[in-house]
Amino acid sequence: MARLFHVPLSPFCRKVRLSLAEKKVEVELVEERYWEQEPDFLRRNPAAKVPVLKLDGKMMAESAAICEYIEETRPEPPLLPRDPDGRYEVRRLIGWFDDKFHNEVTSKLLYERVNKKVMKQGFPDSRNVKDGAKAIKYHLDYMSWLLDHRRWLAGDVMTLADFAAAAHLSSLDYISDVDWNRSAVVKDWYAKIKSRPAFRSILADQVPGFPPPPHYADLDF
Amino acid sequence: MARLFHVPLSPFCRKVRLSLAEKKVEVELVEERYWEQEPDFLRRNPAAKVPVLKLDGKMMAESAAICEYIEETRPEPPLLPRDPDGRYEVRRLIGWFDDKFHNEVTSKLLYERVNKKVMKQGFPDSRNVKDGAKAIKYHLDYMSWLLDHRRWLAGDVMTLADFAAAAHLSSLDYISDVDWNRSAVVKDWYAKIKSRPAFRSILADQVPGFPPPPHYADLDF
Repeated sequence: MARLFHVPLSPFCRKVRLSLAEKKVEVELVEERYWEQEPDFLRRNPAAKVPVLKLDGKMMAESAAICEYIEETRPEPPLLPRDPDGRYEVRRLIGWFDDKFHNEVTSKLLYERVNKKVMKQGFPDSRNVKDGAKAIKYHLDYMSWLLDHRRWLAGDVMTLADFAAAAHLSSLDYISDVDWNRSAVVKDWYAKIKSRPAFRSILADQVPGFPPPPHYADLDF
Repeated sequence: MARLFHVPLSPFCRKVRLSLAEKKVEVELVEERYWEQEPDFLRRNPAAKVPVLKLDGKMMAESAAICEYIEETRPEPPLLPRDPDGRYEVRRLIGWFDDKFHNEVTSKLLYERVNKKVMKQGFPDSRNVKDGAKAIKYHLDYMSWLLDHRRWLAGDVMTLADFAAAAHLSSLDYISDVDWNRSAVVKDWYAKIKSRPAFRSILADQVPGFPPPPHYADLDF
């Protein structure tokens, strides 16, 4: 069986989990305290980060490379369109969320509030938290603008771009950092994606010391 | 004609330039002071970063998405293998250089020494410079280990992974931050890639206030 070394709230791990679940690839989840840099883990991935996926007899790292590999070896149901323009737009948005959104929002809210405590790296930097809380508004507005023009973020079908975005937002929702009242179309989009069977494992996540708010797993939030 | 909005020493822009040149796509280079956030530029790319490529009548952002698009629409000569395992390894290494190497080395040397001055953001942080100078040794050793086993970084043929790595190293070489004596195989690899016609435009780059060292453009360095 496939095995994923992960941490529950990592958006990069969640993107891979969603992709595997959507394609009905069964996977055993193994929590990995990657920041402790155990020799066994460094052997699996010298980059010392998660996700690391054991699949088809290989150890794989880097979530973008992993998701492309899953797509190429398990094409059904497709999470990338067939035409180069459509594929470009999906990959552009994955870059948007995994780079820009990650730097401006996820690292400033989730990493300050949760990772620092779990990794015993001190207290949240209030300046970062403030900047992250401000930046997420701009990103929700950008998503709202996209969803005014499209059914899903990258076009008329659900793709990896939606999973990338939902991975970040669901991790932030776990610590109540998403204002779902800001945009009705973004809330509708999240309700659609949250109700997919692929999302169940993510809604069942529990991080010791950080109980999720009641709305987190509620499909009617 | 294609048009690339770029800054000369950006490794992400250089990766796109190498990819276009290798596929013989002519491109007009336009220097973009993206940190000044001109409205015209923000309209082209709301993420406010470079590269931005105008190609096939579209404005495109995110270097990874751009390079995949170029590969899909201009498949010759191929810069990605055909088999999923080979493609995975190329993309894993692109992630390695554009994420890990970028965070640990490029941002700590190039951005501290050059970008801060060009963008008028103060003086280099000596702690960062020291960390970057230490981290690049580990990365050169990792490349050396790969190249002991393979002709090119991701396997027996040259791929986008080599361009990603060469884009970072060439920008650092422009400010004399690469110790080519550390590994003979890495130096040989760089000599091979540096002598390709696709590399000529990069070796001709000039940044005002930062003249390159004589060895930078020398094929026999």
